[in-house]
Amino acid sequence: MQVEGRDFRTIWPDRGHVSVIDQTRLPHAFETVSLRSMEDAARAIADMVVRGAPLIGAAGAYGAALAMCDDASDDGLRRACARLLATRPTAVNLRWGLERMERRLAALPASDRADAAFAEAAAIADEDAETCAAIGNHGESLIRAAFEKSGRDRVNVLTHCNAGWLATVDWGTALAPIYKAHRAGLPVHVFVDETRPRNQGASLTAWELAQEGVAHTVIVDNAGGHLMQRGEVDLCIVGSDRTTRAGDVCNKIGTYLKALAAKDCGVPFYAALPASTVDWRIVDGLRDIPIEERSPEEVTHLAGMAVDGRVERVRLTPQATPARNPAFDVTPSRLVTGLITERGVCDASAEGLASLFPAEAKAA
Amino acid sequence: MQVEGRDFRTIWPDRGHVSVIDQTRLPHAFETVSLRSMEDAARAIADMVVRGAPLIGAAGAYGAALAMCDDASDDGLRRACARLLATRPTAVNLRWGLERMERRLAALPASDRADAAFAEAAAIADEDAETCAAIGNHGESLIRAAFEKSGRDRVNVLTHCNAGWLATVDWGTALAPIYKAHRAGLPVHVFVDETRPRNQGASLTAWELAQEGVAHTVIVDNAGGHLMQRGEVDLCIVGSDRTTRAGDVCNKIGTYLKALAAKDCGVPFYAALPASTVDWRIVDGLRDIPIEERSPEEVTHLAGMAVDGRVERVRLTPQATPARNPAFDVTPSRLVTGLITERGVCDASAEGLASLFPAEAKAA
Repeated sequence: MQVEGRDFRTIWPDRGHVSVIDQTRLPHAFETVSLRSMEDAARAIADMVVRGAPLIGAAGAYGAALAMCDDASDDGLRRACARLLATRPTAVNLRWGLERMERRLAALPASDRADAAFAEAAAIADEDAETCAAIGNHGESLIRAAFEKSGRDRVNVLTHCNAGWLATVDWGTALAPIYKAHRAGLPVHVFVDETRPRNQGASLTAWELAQEGVAHTVIVDNAGGHLMQRGEVDLCIVGSDRTTRAGDVCNKIGTYLKALAAKDCGVPFYAALPASTVDWRIVDGLRDIPIEERSPEEVTHLAGMAVDGRVERVRLTPQATPARNPAFDVTPSRLVTGLITERGVCDASAEGLASLFPAEAKAA
Repeated sequence: MQVEGRDFRTIWPDRGHVSVIDQTRLPHAFETVSLRSMEDAARAIADMVVRGAPLIGAAGAYGAALAMCDDASDDGLRRACARLLATRPTAVNLRWGLERMERRLAALPASDRADAAFAEAAAIADEDAETCAAIGNHGESLIRAAFEKSGRDRVNVLTHCNAGWLATVDWGTALAPIYKAHRAGLPVHVFVDETRPRNQGASLTAWELAQEGVAHTVIVDNAGGHLMQRGEVDLCIVGSDRTTRAGDVCNKIGTYLKALAAKDCGVPFYAALPASTVDWRIVDGLRDIPIEERSPEEVTHLAGMAVDGRVERVRLTPQATPARNPAFDVTPSRLVTGLITERGVCDASAEGLASLFPAEAKAA
């Protein structure tokens, strides 16, 4: 997608290393970072230099490729995958990407592994971009229908967190339908939840929508319910970090609250996700998805740009205030109107997912 | 209530002027400000140096008293009340306090008005403190019941925004039951919504709970639903800026989302409010309560304490990002378990309110 008029992906191989956009510096600075070792990749995932379930999957795969340059033994492969998997326990794509790398590489002699690993990671990245483009095409028709139903001069989509192209390799998941609709000439406007505590909406989603020229308005996470009550939202589209085979959606903390409001106000609520996000082994998201708790300092402190252009970190609470920081919540499938996948839109249910992914559902 | 071990109210007469705690400086500095004119009082209300519906009522009354020192004519009285009323259109207490002042003063000769105005404002302040203490006593029994039902070693109350003593003259509304329970020896712990955009929870509620020694944990506004899903919240208590005669609650933006989650998770959800907050003229809050829209800069920018101890304002979004900032939302009475008032706890309904306030309900 576009950055200052040039086409970018979020991750790409670069002279034997791997380059990524440093998402911790956005929206105040656009910088790329070179990952030179598996440990660099692990830290980039843990510190959210790269974030978003699909991108984490690709970054994990490239991390395994970097590991093969240093130690391509069976033991090296195993240790690399274990180290990378431990960085973000909730994201199912990370496990998926690493398992695919391990399966592919374990079958090869150690001397062939580095080249094969880079090729496999590139394939994962390309497939992710294609998958997201397909999600965009399927979701675009929902936005078009909502626009026609609204009878207004613009269609208002609410989104939470950043499930844009920065969260993937290209196009995004929740934002892919928006980009496709915008490029097709639909007058789409996006209400962007700022998404505390890390403010991925206010920083990343607002930034990438502006770079692509899509109209948008940032709101605090508290405001979406009110806007839905007043009829100002035509549909909600969010991403998913992990989806159960029954259609429960584990996504950024606060998603559940927006889904409740959408249900209460009769606003359609969709999750956009690649099938790699579906954890076919589990049904009940509330029972079976462990929720990552992150540092309380993400709640008590916050970084932004001071008037003199420095990025400054400030404390919001009284000193030594205790805080809790659960990073995700689970939206039960009963609150989800539908799932937008690379194979089409389906009900958020075991039957719905099985209708699009019969082989995966059967194997589970 | 206690500040650094000394007893304070939020507003008090002080040698012909009026002193208040400067709530825009909290939690990073505790300072008082002297209001020397009606215009000082109006600005203090508009700039949220004083905030919270009951305190705004008292501040408006003292503002009218200050006006009488400068111009005690009928015209001066009318102009002062109009100027003060325009500062915060949503708060019904402001109108209530100013109408009471105008009624009392209009009947007097101009030469008697200044003294009578200070006496009437002091009576309003004292009555507010008594009212909040009574709310605390009635609400304490709900916390005690929730503690006994929980079977745990502490009872967890979730609150939104600041409806503590800083929002009133003393004791608070939503926090009064918590203070009463704490002083009675109940092991009460409070989950404090940070309450974007102005972060009154993270700053004011956390500060006053710490000053009183009440256990608490700050969470982002996105987290409460997740905690309720996991059974970690025993009851919610919020304040109300305006309540309809049918029990709809207009409170800080985001209250509606927490009420939806409480309903979905079977968690009792109470609003604590003095009768002065009830607007007996209206029934349907969604239809009849105008919602104040505040500056978008409250969303895009935020102040906190930098590492060197300066309070610094930082920008969260890309430059020139559009934002919307509705300040309140309406929680329909169907989502409210009950109303905690100075006369007891009642259903959030016309019948419930009429059972406690028959004269007011009949007069409307």
